[in-house]
Amino acid sequence: MEMNIALLPGDGIGPEVIAQAVKVVKAVAKKFGHTIHFEEAPVGAAAIDLTGNPYPDETHEVCLRADAVLFGAIGDPKYDNDPKAKVRPEQGLLAMRKKLGLFANVRPTFTFPSLVHKSPLKLDRIEGVDLVFFRELTGGIYFGEPRGRNEQGTKAFDTNVYSKEEITRLARMGFEAAQKRRKLLTCVDKANVLATSRLWRETVQELAPEYPDVKVEYEFVDAVAMRLIQWPKAYDVLITENLFGDILTDEASVISGSMGLMPSASLGTDNKLFEPIHGSYPQAAGKDIANPLGTILSAAMMFEYAFDLREEAKAISDIVNRSLAEGIVTEDIAEGGKAYKTSEVGDWLAANI
Amino acid sequence: MEMNIALLPGDGIGPEVIAQAVKVVKAVAKKFGHTIHFEEAPVGAAAIDLTGNPYPDETHEVCLRADAVLFGAIGDPKYDNDPKAKVRPEQGLLAMRKKLGLFANVRPTFTFPSLVHKSPLKLDRIEGVDLVFFRELTGGIYFGEPRGRNEQGTKAFDTNVYSKEEITRLARMGFEAAQKRRKLLTCVDKANVLATSRLWRETVQELAPEYPDVKVEYEFVDAVAMRLIQWPKAYDVLITENLFGDILTDEASVISGSMGLMPSASLGTDNKLFEPIHGSYPQAAGKDIANPLGTILSAAMMFEYAFDLREEAKAISDIVNRSLAEGIVTEDIAEGGKAYKTSEVGDWLAANI
Ligand SMILES: CC(C)[C@H](C(=O)O)[C@@H](O)C(=O)O
Ligand SMILES: CC(C)[C@H](C(=O)O)[C@@H](O)C(=O)O
Repeated sequence: MEMNIALLPGDGIGPEVIAQAVKVVKAVAKKFGHTIHFEEAPVGAAAIDLTGNPYPDETHEVCLRADAVLFGAIGDPKYDNDPKAKVRPEQGLLAMRKKLGLFANVRPTFTFPSLVHKSPLKLDRIEGVDLVFFRELTGGIYFGEPRGRNEQGTKAFDTNVYSKEEITRLARMGFEAAQKRRKLLTCVDKANVLATSRLWRETVQELAPEYPDVKVEYEFVDAVAMRLIQWPKAYDVLITENLFGDILTDEASVISGSMGLMPSASLGTDNKLFEPIHGSYPQAAGKDIANPLGTILSAAMMFEYAFDLREEAKAISDIVNRSLAEGIVTEDIAEGGKAYKTSEVGDWLAANI
Repeated sequence: MEMNIALLPGDGIGPEVIAQAVKVVKAVAKKFGHTIHFEEAPVGAAAIDLTGNPYPDETHEVCLRADAVLFGAIGDPKYDNDPKAKVRPEQGLLAMRKKLGLFANVRPTFTFPSLVHKSPLKLDRIEGVDLVFFRELTGGIYFGEPRGRNEQGTKAFDTNVYSKEEITRLARMGFEAAQKRRKLLTCVDKANVLATSRLWRETVQELAPEYPDVKVEYEFVDAVAMRLIQWPKAYDVLITENLFGDILTDEASVISGSMGLMPSASLGTDNKLFEPIHGSYPQAAGKDIANPLGTILSAAMMFEYAFDLREEAKAISDIVNRSLAEGIVTEDIAEGGKAYKTSEVGDWLAANI
């Protein structure tokens, strides 16, 4: 198979972790006889520095041309504490999601047997956790208008907005995933307060009869924030709006004990993007110490979701599991054993796939 | 001292837990020589059933007359899955907060030595946790206009809005609390996406120089959702907007291992309300099994925050600690030992104060 992959390393540790994913993807391609073309483009603070725009048109073109996008991370602290900054790296991420129509962010949470002891949660709560969030990614308060300030600058406002279509297409993905899994769907909202949430709940209620094999539960976001930690095994597939998804998926990432390992897929009708859920981790940038596994497992999701190549995906997750078992890992999860460099982990995985 | 206390039992287990708090407050009054007048009024589903209004004017009058309000819980599942319900019990809660001007919800999170083993988190993460949230309670997306649907009903919207004044008065409370505690204030926002959050951050940055002894940190809500579980000891005082506070304070409540024990205060310029953070827990209503300690500890906060009577407050928390140590507890925290009824716990506490 021939595949065109756009590489968007982004900021901070992004370039380092993407470099390792590329090694692994090349090794997979060689093993399974695929031809891969990579095309790289800047995004985020890196792109601002180059062009003044965090998601330049040329980068967008590269993404449109590609069959899948592999993305690192975005964000630079020099922009964070300046509330008046005109251009922020995150705008590049949001523009990218919007322009590529990536309306569904799929974030699985699962545990690695060799790492469960690193979780802040007790073993009995997390053993066997296997849940997946479908977070709406191109709507809600992230994009709603009007947003801004009054003239005097003394009042600020944002708009949360959802249409039935936006909710429906995301919810259908969740229902379909649930059908292939444990057949439990949880709709997370704040329907006791928000008009948007009531439309979410109503829309999901209307769709439910089309998926009679799926049990649907409705829970308030505050309750889920609690139960996710108390008893994460209670969940299978969760669907939710953009902002709640942002908060809850990051919260869920602590369950497994290492955020550095969690992958994600952002899916649209025409485009697909894959990225680790960790951020740009600027303190570690350039030190060759960042954990590349989240990005490498995102590449595994790419083979599965973008190319329907499950064996290739499995080859990656298998070798990642072996690296964990054999302790070929970066310092964040090394514990006592030798800590390998980012690049060494990438080399080992590529060589042993 | 003479005190007028409004009692708003509300729904579900509300009446049962309030009844126990009343026993304890009476015992404290007797011991310390205070005279207390109670006046009871309906709120929530209970008030809808009686008057059609979840926060009737008569109830509001009772609250205005009182020096402090002791409140149980609100919510009835018969309203939850009907997105088109015209009146919902929660509207009573929101109206009450708004009309009483209760702009600051103070929610401490701490651990009880005898209960730490019940936490889903590992002991080393939670031993000695002592943090407090100041959640803005009368603004933001809970109240912003416009909110609702388009004409066809296919689109819904909510408005998040904050003024500098609203942020300032909440933030000052947080700064002042931090000065009396470990002098660390964390401003939780989503300034990389929301205009409202940027105004929060800007306003807090402007106030900071007035509190030079307080170290201020700014963190994104998704990061806090994570770090709160990973390392809750990193926090002292957290300030945040209404919706983020709703989610994070519920999340934080799992740390201590029993949500049933966590109290809260909602403070305004003229009025003060005290309530447990747990909900109406309808499955347990009428069974005399609900844990009354969250409400009883809220009464302790009432003595401290509404009447500046610290000894009275301490008398309550001391006796609660003794009941925990001696196992005079309800079934949710009994573990092996005998489980006492809600009313028995209340009787024991009142008798032994
Ligand atoms: C960087 C930020 C804008 C982004 C978001 O809030 O969506 C990030 O937190 C994420 O979840 O990918
Ligand atoms: C019942 C609901 C409206 C309320 C809220 O969201 O504020 C509750 O969750 C709370 O935190 O007191």
